Order: sequence, then C-alpha cells, then structure tokens
Amino acid sequence: MKSERKAEIIAVGSELLLGQITNTNAQFISKQLAEIGVNVYYHTAVGDNPERLKQAIQVAQERSNFIIFSGGLGPTKDDLTKETIASTLGKELVLNEEAFESIQDYFRKTGRDMSPNNRKQALVLEGSDVLVNRFGMAPGMFVQEDDTFYMLLPGPPSELHPMFENEAKPLISEKLGLKEKIVSVVLRFFGIGESQLETDLEDLIDAQTNPTIAPLASDGEVTLRLTAKHEDEKETERLLKETEAQILARVGEYFYGYGDTSLVREASKALHEHGKTVAAAESLTGGMFSEWLTDLEGASSIFNGSVVCYTNQVKQQVLGCREETLSSHGAVSKECALELAEGVRKLTGSDIGISFTGVAGPDTQEGQPVGKVFIGLSTKDQTDVFEWMFTGSRSGIRKRAVKYGLHHLLNLLKES
Amino acid sequence: MKSERKAEIIAVGSELLLGQITNTNAQFISKQLAEIGVNVYYHTAVGDNPERLKQAIQVAQERSNFIIFSGGLGPTKDDLTKETIASTLGKELVLNEEAFESIQDYFRKTGRDMSPNNRKQALVLEGSDVLVNRFGMAPGMFVQEDDTFYMLLPGPPSELHPMFENEAKPLISEKLGLKEKIVSVVLRFFGIGESQLETDLEDLIDAQTNPTIAPLASDGEVTLRLTAKHEDEKETERLLKETEAQILARVGEYFYGYGDTSLVREASKALHEHGKTVAAAESLTGGMFSEWLTDLEGASSIFNGSVVCYTNQVKQQVLGCREETLSSHGAVSKECALELAEGVRKLTGSDIGISFTGVAGPDTQEGQPVGKVFIGLSTKDQTDVFEWMFTGSRSGIRKRAVKYGLHHLLNLLKES
Repeated sequence: MKSERKAEIIAVGSELLLGQITNTNAQFISKQLAEIGVNVYYHTAVGDNPERLKQAIQVAQERSNFIIFSGGLGPTKDDLTKETIASTLGKELVLNEEAFESIQDYFRKTGRDMSPNNRKQALVLEGSDVLVNRFGMAPGMFVQEDDTFYMLLPGPPSELHPMFENEAKPLISEKLGLKEKIVSVVLRFFGIGESQLETDLEDLIDAQTNPTIAPLASDGEVTLRLTAKHEDEKETERLLKETEAQILARVGEYFYGYGDTSLVREASKALHEHGKTVAAAESLTGGMFSEWLTDLEGASSIFNGSVVCYTNQVKQQVLGCREETLSSHGAVSKECALELAEGVRKLTGSDIGISFTGVAGPDTQEGQPVGKVFIGLSTKDQTDVFEWMFTGSRSGIRKRAVKYGLHHLLNLLKES
Repeated sequence: MKSERKAEIIAVGSELLLGQITNTNAQFISKQLAEIGVNVYYHTAVGDNPERLKQAIQVAQERSNFIIFSGGLGPTKDDLTKETIASTLGKELVLNEEAFESIQDYFRKTGRDMSPNNRKQALVLEGSDVLVNRFGMAPGMFVQEDDTFYMLLPGPPSELHPMFENEAKPLISEKLGLKEKIVSVVLRFFGIGESQLETDLEDLIDAQTNPTIAPLASDGEVTLRLTAKHEDEKETERLLKETEAQILARVGEYFYGYGDTSLVREASKALHEHGKTVAAAESLTGGMFSEWLTDLEGASSIFNGSVVCYTNQVKQQVLGCREETLSSHGAVSKECALELAEGVRKLTGSDIGISFTGVAGPDTQEGQPVGKVFIGLSTKDQTDVFEWMFTGSRSGIRKRAVKYGLHHLLNLLKES
C-alpha cells in the first residue's frame, strides 16, 4: 500500500530571504502538483546556509514525505542544496556522465571557458533518477529514502518549468501509481470581464462538484479551469465535455481557445490555416505586435515584416500616410489608422495589414486623451477601423491594444 | 541586553499551497526587514488548517524569535490565524474598541450590512499593540511572549504594505532599539557570467564582512548587492564607496548601472543625454528592440521608427539590402547586418542604425546554426558588425540579442 503523499516545497536561496526575488517556484510546483492530485502542506524558504538548510530538511522529514527542493544547484560556493541533502541522508555525490557531457557541450557551443566549479554541477546524489535540464546546466534529481521522496530542481524558472512539466511530472505520476484520473481543461475568454462571466455562469459555479469550475482573471483575460476526477478516464472526459457545452452555450462568443494558448498563438494558427500573411504598422505599440507574432516558431510563413512608425515622417515617407490626413485629423485618428493599415499591407506585399495608433501616455497627444486607440485592419477588399478607449499604465494600454488587434484579426479570419 | 532577532515569516492560506497565488508578502516583508537590518532566516507557508498552523508555530518557536504572520485575519471560518496563535500562546482574544468602531464605520460608509462574523475581526490578542488597517477591516497586532516577538498582518497586499510601512516598521525599530544605519547599493553587470565574476572577485567575496557582497544572476545579467552597516551613516557610505571602487577596478568594463535600472533604460538615457536618435532593422528580433525602447516614456525624442524586416523581400525593397549580398552571403551574415543597419538609419533619418539578423531556431537557416547572431551598428562615420553565438530557447536567443545590441549601443554612446 502506498502512503498518502504530503508534499513540502523547500526553496533554497538567500535572495529569497532578502526579498530580492519572489518565490514563484513554490507557486508553480504547487499548481502542477494540484493538477495530479498531490497535496502540498508546506512551503519553506531557507538561505544558502548548510546548517539551517539541514534543520529545514529535518523539520520537513518529520511532517512531510515528499520533499521538493528548488535552487542551490548552481556552480558557486553558495550553492549547496545537493551537498547538504547528501550529508543529511548519508549519501555520496557521484559524477553523472550525461550531465557532465551536456555541460561541456554548453561551453563548447558558447565558446566560453569552463571553470572548475562548473564540474560540480554534474555531481548527483547516488542512486537518484536524473532529470535532464534542456535550458541550463544543473540536472534535477529524484531519490527515495525510507518511504520519503526527495526531488531536487534548479532555481531559475526558465529551467525549472520545462524540467517539471516534461521530466518531473510524469516521473511523479509513475512513482505514485496514480489511479484516479484527474483531467483539467482550461477555457480562455477575451472581451468579457471576470465579474460579468461569473454572473452569467453563477448557478453553474454554485452547483459545481465534479467537474469543479475555477475562474481566474489575469492580464485582461479570463480563464475557466474545469477539473474532473474519475477512475475511468472516459467518464472524466464526458463530465468535462458536458459542462463545457453548458458554459459555451452562454458565453461562447467570448471563447477563443483552450489551455495554454494565447490570442497571438490562435491568430498565428488561423493565419497558417488560411495561408495568409499579415504586416503591422505600429505607432502606439512600438513593435509589440510583431514581436509577439515572431516569437512563435514558423512565423516566416505568415509574416513578411512590419514598420514601427513612431514619427509622422516615417508614417508619411515609409508608409505613404498623406500629409493632409496628419494635419487635418492627426496621427491618432481613424483616418490615419486606415492609411497606415493599407500602407503597410501594400509596402510588404501582405494579405492583411493591421495598424495601431493611439495615446499610451503619460501625456495626452494632439488633444486626444490617454488610452484612446485606433486599430486598422486592411485587406485588398476593405479596410475597417476599430476605436477603443482603454485605461491603465502605458505598458498596459499598449498590451491591451495588441490583444484587441489580435482579437479583431482572429475574427476577420474566422469570418472569411 | 537584546538578543539578536531571527525572523521567520509565516504566510497562512490554502490558496498559496494550491498555487493560486504567489507569496509576494514574504518578499515584501523580507525586503522591508532587510532595510532595517533584521535577518530573515525562514519563510513558511501553511494552509488554513489549525493543527498544521499550530505545528508551524511550534517549529518557528524553536528556531526563530521574531515570527511574522500574514493572512488568515478575515471574517470567514477559514480565517483562524489569531485564534490558533491565541490557543498556542495560551492567550485570550479581546474586543478592540477602536478596531470595532473602524469596522462599523466601514459598513456605514459603504452602506452595506454588517454580518455577525465581521465582529470577529475586531478581536485581538490580549496585551497586544494594535496596528491600524486603513485599507481594510482586520487590524494587525504585535505581542511579545518569552522574548519572542509575534506580529500578525492581514493577507491582502493592499492592506499589508501600508500597514507595514506606516505602523509595523516604526514599531519594530522601536522595540529593537535600532541604532545602526544599513545602506545597500546594487551594481549591475552585463557580458560576464556569474561564475566568472565570482572568480574575479573571489578574495573580496571571501573576506566580506562589512559591506557584505551578494551576487545574483538572472536573465543573462549579474548583480552585486553591497550592504554596509554602521551607526554613522557617513561611514556606511564610505564603506560602500571603497568596496565599489575595488570591484570596479577589476570588472568595471562590464558594469552598466545601479539599482533597478536596465540596459534599455541606460541606453535610452544615454541617447537622451547625447541628443541622438536610433532606428532598428529587426529581422531576428522581430520588433523586440523597438518595443523595449518605446515602452519607456519620452521615447519619441530618441526614436523615429524601425523596420521589422522578416523576409528578404522587405530587406531589399524597404531597407535597400542588395540582392547580391543576400544571394552570396545570405541574410544571416555580417554583410547583410551591415547593409540593414545603414539602410534603416538612412530610411528613418536617424543618427544611429542598429540591425539584428540571426537564427532563433528551432531550425538552422542558410547553413547557419541556431544561436548565430549578427548585430550591426551604423553611424554616419562608420558601421560595425558584432558576431555572437548564443544558446537557449528561441525567446532566450532573441532576448539576449536585444540585450547585447543595447550593450553595444551603450558602449558606442559612451565612447562618443
């Protein structure tokens, strides 16, 4: 019989205790463990100090039987997580050939010199399963001792996240012999506020048991996470589908995708599916739309290029915006948005041109208030301009403009 | 004689253990305490469960003598921080008239009905100093028992932050009879790895006492935090300056700024100071350079515009890159970077043109490996191209390219 796992996450690093960084790893790991039904009972943070870390391990051994460490696997003298665990458990550290090769490889590729303390990163706890680090040098580890699980993960989130999702999570499920299948689905909405969504779904949310319905708002979007549990995986699927259908019957017009997708990912997918290219004339947004789109793999088949047209001179000379338009309507106007969207479409030979002009603040511009935004959308058949008034910080207004632009683009592609 | 305070922050709330929120309170309180020289040795997070909270308090009593709680002071049944502390310390909860009036006042003002459980929020530990909550209902508390300090703070950051700064911090300084002034300075470095920096400064770091020297690496940058303590504030300043000079004598070429600044902020400042404008030809980086620069206020006086030149057609037709260059050297080449930097400088009428071309991956391109990057930097007098080989994810390579570009730009402006 397996004992119930009581998990504790120990983050190691003096920078946490000095308040220089937030312990986002504890949140991330907790969320991931919640998804596979592992209960987390404690988070602990402790500094780069072997005695205090040892004490923290001993406290954890008393109250938990699944101890997950993050941080302290780096090459410097301060990094002593695995050394302290080794001495607490009475285990040796041994060189892991695979990890050592990957570290050497890293230095070869970057043309930098390997310092002797980088070798230390390839040492692992004897008898441990090694978790591969594809985005850094320190390998992760899993080891079981006296019915307690120990897992060691690197501190940087850019290394920890992929390692947890790709290596640690499947390994934990295997070690736990999980039977009840827990399946979650996340529905993403745009253009509706959290309180409106909750009001529209109030009776469903109040009556929730299996699946549970958890709304979450962030960054101008709302998501609903539906989580169903059942020993029969097909039954969890059926439960999820049923609830999803009830929800979409009410607020489907705001729904745009599942899971970890994003507006830019969905817009990119739709462009690929329709075989269309897009180009942007970015005044207000300063390159953000293009940056988001090109951050995704395969951008070159849907994106030719863009113009960041910050000054009127660039709007005119590069994009062909008319002098008269700028002088009589201003750069923050419906008319200008229209000419910019058309201009960049033609200049880059793209199927769709999108333009962003507006006032990000902190100062008003040409008599237009902070938050006023025009988004142009041009195809060879027609050009539309959408007018918006946003509130928030400079960055917030720019980001919302890009999101609404993507939303308009997505709708255009859906309709076509 | 006062005993040294070893602080521990206990955050109470099941939402932390489910990963629904990050424990930003621990960071905030730690930073605030570091400023007044109180050492934080542990962070703990525990759920809304009286038994486990009691155990966490007992663990903290063993190892710490200043225990700070955040969360669990609300009106619902789940909120049981002060009840659990009261039973652990054998203290009564008594009604605090001032807090009760302020709660009644709150309900009068908002025109809502007060429910019986709101009265619970006015109960405080007997013998405690009460900390006023100006942004919510739950009062904070401070109580001393057996030479251990206990402080209770509300969970919502909007209530905790002002309470800590205005009420808790002065009270702690008073209770501790603080005399020493503690001052920190953060030095930021770019272009040098953490282990190399530590190797170069090894003897200084090993010998550190006052100031202390704490290195921290994140996102391709390294910072050093120097912290000095002395009763005479001028002496702390002198100690900091002395150590800073020793550090910069060795690794000054990588130093770029103090405190919370960033490469883009420093580059923007330098452009403003020199009265120069910059424009970017962004192939690899897809608009990221421009986006970062225009995210800062006042961008319009240093930035005219940019071209995101993703396809060869845009490189040629918009930026005047020669067909021959593309066909004989390829788009990812020194020659192309040079023409793009010159081209965008001329097109936008800017003082400086910067270009980014390279392979972000996941696939190689024109026989060039993933991570190969060329950065061009053009003025009317000369154009230079820098060649780099980066590792990491697609986003990571693009980000590093922009950071190196900003670094080159900063050096160009410093030299001029």
